[in-house]
Amino acid sequence: MEKKKIGWIGTGVMGNSMCSHVLKAGHSVAVYNRTKAKATNLIDMGAQWCSNPKEVAEKSDIIFTIVGFPQDVRQVYFGAEGIFKGIKKGAITIDMTTSEPTLAQEIYEEGKKMGVHCLDAPVSGGDVGAREGTLAIMVGGDKEIYEEILPLFQLMGKNIAYMGKAGAGQHTKMSNQILIAGTMIGVVESLLYAYKAGNDLTEVINVIGKGAAGCWSINNLGPRIVKGNFDPGFFIKHFVKDMGIALQEAKQMNLSLPGLALAYQFYVAAMAMGLENLGTQGLYKVFAKMNGVDI
Amino acid sequence: MEKKKIGWIGTGVMGNSMCSHVLKAGHSVAVYNRTKAKATNLIDMGAQWCSNPKEVAEKSDIIFTIVGFPQDVRQVYFGAEGIFKGIKKGAITIDMTTSEPTLAQEIYEEGKKMGVHCLDAPVSGGDVGAREGTLAIMVGGDKEIYEEILPLFQLMGKNIAYMGKAGAGQHTKMSNQILIAGTMIGVVESLLYAYKAGNDLTEVINVIGKGAAGCWSINNLGPRIVKGNFDPGFFIKHFVKDMGIALQEAKQMNLSLPGLALAYQFYVAAMAMGLENLGTQGLYKVFAKMNGVDI
Repeated sequence: MEKKKIGWIGTGVMGNSMCSHVLKAGHSVAVYNRTKAKATNLIDMGAQWCSNPKEVAEKSDIIFTIVGFPQDVRQVYFGAEGIFKGIKKGAITIDMTTSEPTLAQEIYEEGKKMGVHCLDAPVSGGDVGAREGTLAIMVGGDKEIYEEILPLFQLMGKNIAYMGKAGAGQHTKMSNQILIAGTMIGVVESLLYAYKAGNDLTEVINVIGKGAAGCWSINNLGPRIVKGNFDPGFFIKHFVKDMGIALQEAKQMNLSLPGLALAYQFYVAAMAMGLENLGTQGLYKVFAKMNGVDI
Repeated sequence: MEKKKIGWIGTGVMGNSMCSHVLKAGHSVAVYNRTKAKATNLIDMGAQWCSNPKEVAEKSDIIFTIVGFPQDVRQVYFGAEGIFKGIKKGAITIDMTTSEPTLAQEIYEEGKKMGVHCLDAPVSGGDVGAREGTLAIMVGGDKEIYEEILPLFQLMGKNIAYMGKAGAGQHTKMSNQILIAGTMIGVVESLLYAYKAGNDLTEVINVIGKGAAGCWSINNLGPRIVKGNFDPGFFIKHFVKDMGIALQEAKQMNLSLPGLALAYQFYVAAMAMGLENLGTQGLYKVFAKMNGVDI
């Protein structure tokens, strides 16, 4: 694609890797992050530092954002030094934060008023997917804008899907997180049962992971639980954020999701136990503790 | 292996296919089933009909059982016309019913007193796996007896694992069912959320089924839910039995499994709605009804 002026806001673990792929492809990038130190490597690669999102918007045709919480997204777009204060007519914004579908719709509407095109495009695949450029990207917004941005998405991901109108990308990510919530409950209860029953957990995972009970989590996180490895692929604190958004959006749709609500409560318990910086497999510790099992 | 006299008790959907593989391999089989009509094809293949489990035991060196509920297993082994009334010293029994681990231990102990070797060897893989001889088989009991029976297991399954002492096979199956319970809650809540949010369910499955949220159920049962196909791969009524056993065994181990308990309650609701003969994906109907969604 024609080299456009790219803006990038948010250079955490995910955003940093993703932005580096854009730089490596030869695009000029204007960058901002709350903590400048986390953008140093990108500046070294040629990115131009900006002092706030407004300045990024003033210098860019296409602006990617990937920050922490919905309130951060709101600040980055609508704040006094936000994107919408500096953006040019005809520009495109893409929010890749996992955030509220309703906020994505609000951003889309605000952009429309200003002659700006806004996409929501949350990702899954974690730090490894970001580093290797193999993320899944779920996109909502206008289809022709999605198609215009697709070559840039292809620098970051493999499994890229246009899901529909504004918010549809975020809604898809919510479906993803709701499914993970259920499978994680199944994984930790299944393994804790095996432990209490005196079975060999590795053998159990080998057998049940291959059939109708099989899932990514039992095959990838199960063995880490067995080894006592609770390092984060995906942080508990971020998963709690995502489930909170899903529950709130479901409530707005008058949709009761008791399984998600249960998983959420146990992950909140994990936060209470100080486990917020463990990976999602840390849920095993909550169920073990509750059941008086020392691990 | 040397051709032994095989006994087979239980010729339902699963047992019928499994027994036919043993017959096809050239073994002589004495067969009993509560409903004789369901054994007709096996008798046509050369199986010798017996009028009760005791008679099967009198005629056999190795006796397989695969019946319905734990109380049926108890009747078949311990009843007035049960296996233990007719069994020969040195014989081997293998219960392939999904049943109580504690009952498997009881059968093992009773056998030991009589000089008989007893295995528990529940399966997963459904009617298709039984027909194609690709079942997963999870075996508990004495290892040397497992090794003696292995060539017969290989006629019925592919993923065959020795799990440990008596009951360990049943415990493994319980871990399998507990994991499915969690994933099924995740699957139906995830898809119902997508439906309410106005996303295309097939597109959602395509995206989320490939990554960290992926599981056998979303990729195999998800598309059936989308098509409104609730035909049984695995019956709700049987899953309710299995989860009931798991909850009871967990209680005996002082193990609290809130996710399993929740899934159980919703599957009991499915029974209350008359959905017992649907496949496990029928859980979607319960969550849809509860949320006022017409499907």
